[in-house]
Amino acid sequence: MLSKATISLITSLEKKKLRDELGLFVAEGEKLVADLSRTLKVKSIYATIQSGIESAELISAAEMKKISFLKNPSSVLGVFHTPNHEELNLSPSSLVLALDDVQDPGNLGAIIRLCDWFGITILLCSTHTADCYSPKVVQATMGAIARVRVYYVDLQAQLNVAQKAGIPVFGAFLEGKNIYQESLPTGGIVVMGNEGNGISKEIASLITQKLYIPSFAESAQKSESLNVAIASAVICSEFKRRAL
Amino acid sequence: MLSKATISLITSLEKKKLRDELGLFVAEGEKLVADLSRTLKVKSIYATIQSGIESAELISAAEMKKISFLKNPSSVLGVFHTPNHEELNLSPSSLVLALDDVQDPGNLGAIIRLCDWFGITILLCSTHTADCYSPKVVQATMGAIARVRVYYVDLQAQLNVAQKAGIPVFGAFLEGKNIYQESLPTGGIVVMGNEGNGISKEIASLITQKLYIPSFAESAQKSESLNVAIASAVICSEFKRRAL
Repeated sequence: MLSKATISLITSLEKKKLRDELGLFVAEGEKLVADLSRTLKVKSIYATIQSGIESAELISAAEMKKISFLKNPSSVLGVFHTPNHEELNLSPSSLVLALDDVQDPGNLGAIIRLCDWFGITILLCSTHTADCYSPKVVQATMGAIARVRVYYVDLQAQLNVAQKAGIPVFGAFLEGKNIYQESLPTGGIVVMGNEGNGISKEIASLITQKLYIPSFAESAQKSESLNVAIASAVICSEFKRRAL
Repeated sequence: MLSKATISLITSLEKKKLRDELGLFVAEGEKLVADLSRTLKVKSIYATIQSGIESAELISAAEMKKISFLKNPSSVLGVFHTPNHEELNLSPSSLVLALDDVQDPGNLGAIIRLCDWFGITILLCSTHTADCYSPKVVQATMGAIARVRVYYVDLQAQLNVAQKAGIPVFGAFLEGKNIYQESLPTGGIVVMGNEGNGISKEIASLITQKLYIPSFAESAQKSESLNVAIASAVICSEFKRRAL
């Protein structure tokens, strides 16, 4: 049976402040929890059914409902230790994505998942970007949170350092150059902006090459922009296929 | 002041059955409503502030709360007539996207938005795909719902007809051929599958060319798939840039 203290500990992990203080986060779903437990340090796992996960503690469906963040709780919930990534070390030869205040958890989750797909192992986030260990983000990553190293950094300072080290810094701008026609290196940092405001002025001044995904719409009225996760995917696809 | 009947009419539009019966749907947000009202037939518009939209009826914030589907209601809500699209007419020269039971409203909204961006004006949806006029989908399209014609069809029958008319039918499969290395025509139908199950067997048998977005991940453990909206974007990008 779950103690009151345990229930309150787990539900408190909905808040970033508590996640940060305790160095813990929650993931739900049999597949996701099994996936993460292969890579990350497990604090505790709870299951309402006999799952394939050995260390899981059996609890009732009513108890699961108390600790779950999902509308429809799944059968397994895991509490994991937030990973301590090795010190950030940027190299000019690998592609890195950087987010300037991306706010939507679904977008951040989708971006972490696509980073994993496109072999991008480092994701830089400005300090005001959504927290990658929030329950919604973790779920949306579909396990990629265990493989992509997410660093929350002073993005302006980091891009300054990168620029001085000769690492090209790209950014997605509506007034940028047609990405399909630009020559692209195999490495560099690609900055994606906030959903409503795009890339901030301070960060924009550090971009060495502005890129744009052209619209193919023929009508006068058309969408003004692409969703940030969708645009990230198109840009990563362009960089990676060129290096094939 | 809003009558009880009006409030109950609008809130009933959360249900697909009622939307279908009444031929109406709801959109919220000053920009979105203004955008849609330029193209679609307006039934009524409500605003808590003096908006730029002439025909809007002024209501109180408390009233807006009663009719809004948003956690944080915006200042403008519009009720629109569902558009009657011209009869579906597929041509081998234009690119069309088809969804085989895509379930998540956020994914469907993102796909409609990216169709608009990539100049894809026809989106075919299997009858079990999420409804494009549900409030969540409409919001996620950011206005593209007014420009992309969404047809709910017997997808199997439609693909059969297309195949006989010599229109190539592509599909995204994990066992497909590397899209970056395949030659692609300017037109055809690209089928994207359900979030959990991919493309159904019945539909798969009608695909003439199976495509795959290769993973660039180097580690043994990696994501098993891309989100369906993300994969749609990468595929549309590949088709469209080749035709540049």
